[in-house]
Amino acid sequence: MKVMRITQPGGPEVLAFDERPEPTPGPNDVQVRVRASALNRADLLQVRGVYPPPPDVPQDVPGLEYAGEVVAVGPRARKFKVGDRVMGLVGGGAWSEVLTTHEREVLRMPAGMDFADAAALPEAYLTAWDALVLQADLRAGETVLVHAVASGVGAAAALLCRAMGVRVVGTGRNAEKLARASEWGVGTTVLCASSPPVFADAVLEATEGRGADVCLDLVGGNYLPESLKAMAPRGRLMQVGSVAGTRVDLDLGLVMRKRLRITGTVLRSRQAEEKMALTQAAERQLLPLFDSGALKPVVDEVLPMAELRSGLERMAGNTTVGKVVVRWA
Amino acid sequence: MKVMRITQPGGPEVLAFDERPEPTPGPNDVQVRVRASALNRADLLQVRGVYPPPPDVPQDVPGLEYAGEVVAVGPRARKFKVGDRVMGLVGGGAWSEVLTTHEREVLRMPAGMDFADAAALPEAYLTAWDALVLQADLRAGETVLVHAVASGVGAAAALLCRAMGVRVVGTGRNAEKLARASEWGVGTTVLCASSPPVFADAVLEATEGRGADVCLDLVGGNYLPESLKAMAPRGRLMQVGSVAGTRVDLDLGLVMRKRLRITGTVLRSRQAEEKMALTQAAERQLLPLFDSGALKPVVDEVLPMAELRSGLERMAGNTTVGKVVVRWA
Repeated sequence: MKVMRITQPGGPEVLAFDERPEPTPGPNDVQVRVRASALNRADLLQVRGVYPPPPDVPQDVPGLEYAGEVVAVGPRARKFKVGDRVMGLVGGGAWSEVLTTHEREVLRMPAGMDFADAAALPEAYLTAWDALVLQADLRAGETVLVHAVASGVGAAAALLCRAMGVRVVGTGRNAEKLARASEWGVGTTVLCASSPPVFADAVLEATEGRGADVCLDLVGGNYLPESLKAMAPRGRLMQVGSVAGTRVDLDLGLVMRKRLRITGTVLRSRQAEEKMALTQAAERQLLPLFDSGALKPVVDEVLPMAELRSGLERMAGNTTVGKVVVRWA
Repeated sequence: MKVMRITQPGGPEVLAFDERPEPTPGPNDVQVRVRASALNRADLLQVRGVYPPPPDVPQDVPGLEYAGEVVAVGPRARKFKVGDRVMGLVGGGAWSEVLTTHEREVLRMPAGMDFADAAALPEAYLTAWDALVLQADLRAGETVLVHAVASGVGAAAALLCRAMGVRVVGTGRNAEKLARASEWGVGTTVLCASSPPVFADAVLEATEGRGADVCLDLVGGNYLPESLKAMAPRGRLMQVGSVAGTRVDLDLGLVMRKRLRITGTVLRSRQAEEKMALTQAAERQLLPLFDSGALKPVVDEVLPMAELRSGLERMAGNTTVGKVVVRWA
């Protein structure tokens, strides 16, 4: 089978096709013929050599999500059969023609969805849904502040909020990208062109002075102090990324006075039992929103695998809206 | 009735006795003849004029907790009768001979407890219990890192952990005070004489490399970065004080990698419904541990009200272990 592998640490140019033997499924695994995968910022870090993958996946083949068809199942696997259309998250190795994964970490594809859309779904939506619903306990009627709202996770969060009866204030650094947010039901957008960013007053104004109940922050850095100013009492801030930096100045007095909660989260390093639990909960509670049409993946473009490198360059340049998908021919 | 009031902003010396009319109970209130109260760091801040009390309490009479006898009840109050021995938290005004408070914010005194011990109980134990049990969801078998373990809240947290089957690592800046912690079941103590403090390695060693599941931090400042190093994956840090400062340097990368949760909390500014809910939950789940003898208040000394000022001085000088109680004659 073909894979897209890291030949040495570096930028997208170090990626190259290679040939590998197909992995065989363990007793509880399914073997999937991957039709499409998608690009994530974590891939860029892994290619640069600064984000080592978990030990149980191919170390030199990136790729965190896939959509494809089941081509074989292990002797004790029960949930899927050959020919089923499936999608899911893996700790790495999704940029391969074939992968194997435990059946309880696999999701059926929503009815009527094509492989390209399905490949754009798992990382963005599971990240947003896990952070907002499972961890921040988001409820209808609340207001969420979503930073980088035009990113893959940001767009998924916005659409999820619309489906849940939750109001969104979205920030972004690019006016053109931010304009797309109104398509996703984002009521208020704030362009953050300067540094440090300024958005707290806009959030307070949009919420009659109360502030945001939840903040989904993919940016970090100097967004954090301003986010805390924008939060409502007992607000919950979910830190899911830190593209603007990890060292921040925190005002503990504000955190105590407002009784705020700051939670860091990542999906990739979780143990198998947690990944399975997330997958199974998503099957019950998230997939029905795709079946009904309330949610849809946001795809920036679909490229052949041979053009994956240029997709990574575009993602690194922050010009994409939603996900970049790569497809085997 | 007599009160101890703030004559002008300043140190303990600005406090003086005054005479006031007795407050009369509202429909759902009880009127309490206060026998004893206790001192808290918040009182020092309020006396200095930098911590304004909530609007619904006497503005110039500090005091956050009391024990005494019910002397009258409002027409719709049902829970207590004249003569009942009660204790509780108030937003202020406890340094009075008489106070009124909603009956659902009042706790019965544990059987056999005297007024001085009962006055030392509410703030320390409700703060520790609310933070550890209700908010951090602490479970038997876990490990808690308690900073300032010889303080009022610290000692309450340590005893509560012993009663719950939870292991404690305690820190403090005074070797003599820290030595008392072994009486409360604290298995590991770390003297933090230097700044920044160094304790993460000791916590990791005491937990076979795993780290603390929960941290109860009354200190803040440069304790926070070291605390995060000392935490286990998915650890919950409760910020309940910041005597070492409120501006801290936070490593969001660490917060995300370990999936940590930082929660700020205060009791005093909460609305009535939350104070009632906390009181009623404590009646069901916390008071039984005093009735059984598993918990007891930790009292440093008991002073007559006329010597309250010297008690405040000692508390400000960090030489007290547990609570300083003041008693009406």
